[in-house]
Amino acid sequence: MKKFAVVLSGCGVFDGTEITEAIMTMLAIKKNGGKYFIFAPDVDQYHVLNHLTGKPSHEKRNVLVESARIARGKIQPLSTFRADEFDAIVFPGGFGAAKNLSTWAVDGDDATVNKDVENAVAAMLAAGKPIGAMCIAPVILGKLIPETVLTTGNDKPSADYIRKMGSDYEKTTHGEVTIDRENKVFSTPCYMLDATIVQIADGTDNLIKEMMKGM
Amino acid sequence: MKKFAVVLSGCGVFDGTEITEAIMTMLAIKKNGGKYFIFAPDVDQYHVLNHLTGKPSHEKRNVLVESARIARGKIQPLSTFRADEFDAIVFPGGFGAAKNLSTWAVDGDDATVNKDVENAVAAMLAAGKPIGAMCIAPVILGKLIPETVLTTGNDKPSADYIRKMGSDYEKTTHGEVTIDRENKVFSTPCYMLDATIVQIADGTDNLIKEMMKGM
Repeated sequence: MKKFAVVLSGCGVFDGTEITEAIMTMLAIKKNGGKYFIFAPDVDQYHVLNHLTGKPSHEKRNVLVESARIARGKIQPLSTFRADEFDAIVFPGGFGAAKNLSTWAVDGDDATVNKDVENAVAAMLAAGKPIGAMCIAPVILGKLIPETVLTTGNDKPSADYIRKMGSDYEKTTHGEVTIDRENKVFSTPCYMLDATIVQIADGTDNLIKEMMKGM
Repeated sequence: MKKFAVVLSGCGVFDGTEITEAIMTMLAIKKNGGKYFIFAPDVDQYHVLNHLTGKPSHEKRNVLVESARIARGKIQPLSTFRADEFDAIVFPGGFGAAKNLSTWAVDGDDATVNKDVENAVAAMLAAGKPIGAMCIAPVILGKLIPETVLTTGNDKPSADYIRKMGSDYEKTTHGEVTIDRENKVFSTPCYMLDATIVQIADGTDNLIKEMMKGM
């Protein structure tokens, strides 16, 4: 049974993990015969946004603690991730990927990546194991992997950034998966496009299926 | 296209909506040709639990604001719900159903139900439109509907309560739906059982399919 690490970035599309993408990723892994283990970095969120009004709130929330809501408490700090214990790693989207796992949404070209995320991706890349990302999360891989090919659907700012970091960019539509077979890097647009929940389910399922083929 | 109102109770199994059940409900409605509209009452949560440690935190959070995380911001206060605009109403589970929508988890036999929830259920019942509940949410219907039949899987405290409130109780397992055809009341156990995510997807899909048959 193939073991997937799923890396979350909080709980809610505007300041954390895109919840539907996370749940559909877990469903796709299980449906396709794999097993998932959920991780998140133990760091404060960049900020907290009220998802009703879109406005910042003055609360402080922790990425690991909020991600535990999606995981029903079954989650581990990403610092404990070991590449030799897993067959693949996957990053659902949501602004948390670009605010908490990396700082791309804030710092643009000067973005940095969380150290635990950097270590996990580097270890899986070195081990030749599949790495997946959806929605805006491919910007993290654009920063960390010198030359690959990625998609965020049809979004210009992230496409420009990915190209500037040295990778190719593919325009994609609902459910399509961009694949770098050499580095085993997989991405799909999900909610970077104006998608329905069924299209998100299809996109995550296609991503996980493609990742499994190479295992 | 059949219109479902989905009523949330926060964001996270221990103090709000069970997230997987909510997402799978939305997926099932869309997959089966319906359309969903998300509601939650605009009230404070009973409490906030740290989902990593299980311990209470001293924060205050609002049910409508936190539910908006699952809804990607597209949510309305339950006070604005009108039965004549919908074909069905459905309540995903999570402790929020028994702490925020009702007080059953706190007050047991003396539980009260949120006024907006009470009004919505009464209006749908009077209109002869399907009402669905999953996980622990059927205790709300046990309180509000004089004589029906409900399930929470195989859980003794909620079964005892439902019987005490005047309804019948059916033991069920993964994916089974308990149906009161006269009142059009539908329930399924979901995470009241030790379920996998695929079993949750099946259970919610079966519930929505059964609800749609009667429309």
